Amino acid sequence: MNSRDPAVDGVQHVVVLAGGYGGAKLSHGMTLVATARRAEGGRPLDLSVIVNTGDDLELHGLLVSPDLDTVLYTLAGWANSETGWGVRDETWSNADMLGRYGAPTWFSLGDRDLATHVLRTERIRAGATLTSVTAELARALGVRARILPMTDAPVRTRLRTDAGWLDFQDYFVRRHHADPVHELRFDGLTDARPTPEVSAALRSAHVLVLAPSNPFVSIGPILGLAGVVDVLHEARARGVPVVAISPIVGGVALRGPADRMFRSLGGEPSAAGVARHYAERYPGLIETLVIDEQDLGDGEAIAATGIRSVVGPAVMRDDADRRRLAEFVLDIAEQDSTRA
Amino acid sequence: MNSRDPAVDGVQHVVVLAGGYGGAKLSHGMTLVATARRAEGGRPLDLSVIVNTGDDLELHGLLVSPDLDTVLYTLAGWANSETGWGVRDETWSNADMLGRYGAPTWFSLGDRDLATHVLRTERIRAGATLTSVTAELARALGVRARILPMTDAPVRTRLRTDAGWLDFQDYFVRRHHADPVHELRFDGLTDARPTPEVSAALRSAHVLVLAPSNPFVSIGPILGLAGVVDVLHEARARGVPVVAISPIVGGVALRGPADRMFRSLGGEPSAAGVARHYAERYPGLIETLVIDEQDLGDGEAIAATGIRSVVGPAVMRDDADRRRLAEFVLDIAEQDSTRA
Repeated sequence: MNSRDPAVDGVQHVVVLAGGYGGAKLSHGMTLVATARRAEGGRPLDLSVIVNTGDDLELHGLLVSPDLDTVLYTLAGWANSETGWGVRDETWSNADMLGRYGAPTWFSLGDRDLATHVLRTERIRAGATLTSVTAELARALGVRARILPMTDAPVRTRLRTDAGWLDFQDYFVRRHHADPVHELRFDGLTDARPTPEVSAALRSAHVLVLAPSNPFVSIGPILGLAGVVDVLHEARARGVPVVAISPIVGGVALRGPADRMFRSLGGEPSAAGVARHYAERYPGLIETLVIDEQDLGDGEAIAATGIRSVVGPAVMRDDADRRRLAEFVLDIAEQDSTRA
Repeated sequence: MNSRDPAVDGVQHVVVLAGGYGGAKLSHGMTLVATARRAEGGRPLDLSVIVNTGDDLELHGLLVSPDLDTVLYTLAGWANSETGWGVRDETWSNADMLGRYGAPTWFSLGDRDLATHVLRTERIRAGATLTSVTAELARALGVRARILPMTDAPVRTRLRTDAGWLDFQDYFVRRHHADPVHELRFDGLTDARPTPEVSAALRSAHVLVLAPSNPFVSIGPILGLAGVVDVLHEARARGVPVVAISPIVGGVALRGPADRMFRSLGGEPSAAGVARHYAERYPGLIETLVIDEQDLGDGEAIAATGIRSVVGPAVMRDDADRRRLAEFVLDIAEQDSTRA
C-alpha cells in the first residue's frame, strides 16, 4: 500500500535522485511520460529531481552548480546533446576574453551558461537560497518539474589521489578524471541538511528512483545527508518502491569515472558491483535494480545482495530511450507497489 | 617653468581627465604620439588617464564601469569603433539568455565585455581596489598608459528629470538621455577621495588636459573630488599648462546630451558656453580651450572669460585625427609652458 491512495490523490509523485547527465536524461524521460499522460488524460505525474550539489564550485566569484545546470538545461530543452553538459547554441566569447585577461579557463563557461551563474550568484548574494533561485530559473525556462538541490548548504566533494586531495572539478574537468581515486570526502556534508523541499518530496513520493548516476560522487552525497536514508527506509516500509538503474553496463560506466572508482575505492565495476555497493552501504534500501540485457549474467550475484534485478532499457541514447526507461521504471514501480 | 625640468626628468608626464568616448579617443591619440616618439627616439611620453566613475552601476550583481571600460578597450585596441562603447568582435549570447531568464537587458552587456565585469567584481569582492583591478586588466591587455579611476569609493551620478531622480545609466541608456535634466547630484562624492595614484599623477603632471567630455557629468565629478581643483591650481601656479578641448562644436555636443544639459542646467551649448562653464565654476583653472574652426566666432566671448581659445583639430573622426589633436594639445602646452 502506498502512503497516498491514488484514488484519493490522483497525482503520481515521482522523485528522482540525480547527479548530472544520467539523472538529467532519466528525469527528462519522466517529463516526456508526464507530457504524454497530460495529452492522453492519464494519471498526472509530478516530478521532483533531487540533485547532487557536491560538484559545485566558485569560479571567477560565481557559483557554478554543474549537476543542477545539466538537469535544468536538459529539462528546459536547452541542453547541448553533443557534449552532455552546457547549453545548446552556445558561444565562447567570454571564455576567450577571460583567457586574454589571464584568468583560468580550464572550466569552460559558455556565454549562455554564464547567465545562469551570474543570476544565481546575484540572487544568493542577495540572500536567496539555492533552492529558490533554482526554482526561479527553472520557471523562467518553462520547466514544470521541481528541480531541488539536495541542500542549500555548501557541500564540496574532494578526492584523494596520488596528487593529493583535489577539488571535484579540478579532478573531473581539469585533470580529466584520470587520477585513481583513493578516498572521498564530502566537505560540509555533516553540517548540511536536506532542504524542507527535499524532505517534503521524499515524504510524498509514490516512486523513488536512483538515477543511473555515479554511486560514489553523485548519489552518495545525497544519501549521505542527515536523515535522507531514514526517510527512504520509512518510504519503503510504507510500500513505496525504490528503484535504481545501474550506471555500469557491460563492466563500463555509461559516462565518467564510476567504473574506475569501483576499482580504486573497492568493489567491482559491474551491475553486480553496483548492487553490492548499495546493499552493503544502505542495507534494505533498494528494492529493484534495472540492469542492461548484457548484464543478465549478473542476476544471481545481484539476487545474493537481497536486491531484485530486472533487465530493462538501461541505456539512453535518444529521447525515445529516455521515455522508454522512464516508463519501464514506472511499470516496475507499479508492480512493486502492488506486490507490497 | 615646470615643476620638473625636462632636462632632469626626460619623461613627459601627461594627464588626461576623461569621461567615456571623447576622453578615450584623445587618450588614444596621446598613446599614438608616445609610440611615435618611442620609434623616433623622441621624448618619452608617460600617460595617465583619470577617469570618471560616476557613471558606474551594479548590474546582475556585477560592477560595471562604463567610462573606465571605454578607456580600457580603446587603449587596448579592443574598442568597438562603430558604437563607441563595448568591445569589437562582440557576441550577445549571454544577454539573450539573461532575457530568457526574465532579467533586465536594457543595459547591453556583450559576452566579451562581461569578462571585464566578472573579473573586476571578483577581485573587488576579494578586497582589491578598483584602481588595482583596473591596472591588472589594463596590463593583461597590453595597455602601457595608467588608467586611473578618479576614486576607489563609490560615486553615483543622479539626475533630476520630470520623471524624478534617475540613476545615470537609467537616464543615459534606458531612457536614451531624452529627459531634460533639471539638477545633478553625485552621491558619495563628498566622502570620496581621489586615490593616491590620482594625486600622484596630478602632482607630477607636465601637461594637464581636460578631454572633450561632458563638463557636467564626466569632468564635473572628477573636479568635484576633494582637493583635485586645489592640486590643479598648484600645478598652474608652477607653470603646468591646463588645456581643455571643447566637447561642443557648432553648438552641438560631439556625442551625448551635453548640449541639452547646457540648456536645461544653465548656460549655452557653444564653445563660449563651455569656457564660461569652466571659468565660472573653476576660476583661473583653465588656461587654454581648444575649439573647432567653426567656433572661431566665439573667440571674443571666450577671451572675456579669461580663458585663451585656440582653434584646432577638435573633432576626432579616425585614428589620425586622434593623434593630430593630441599633438596639437601637446604643442599648445609647450607654448604655454614656455610663456609661463
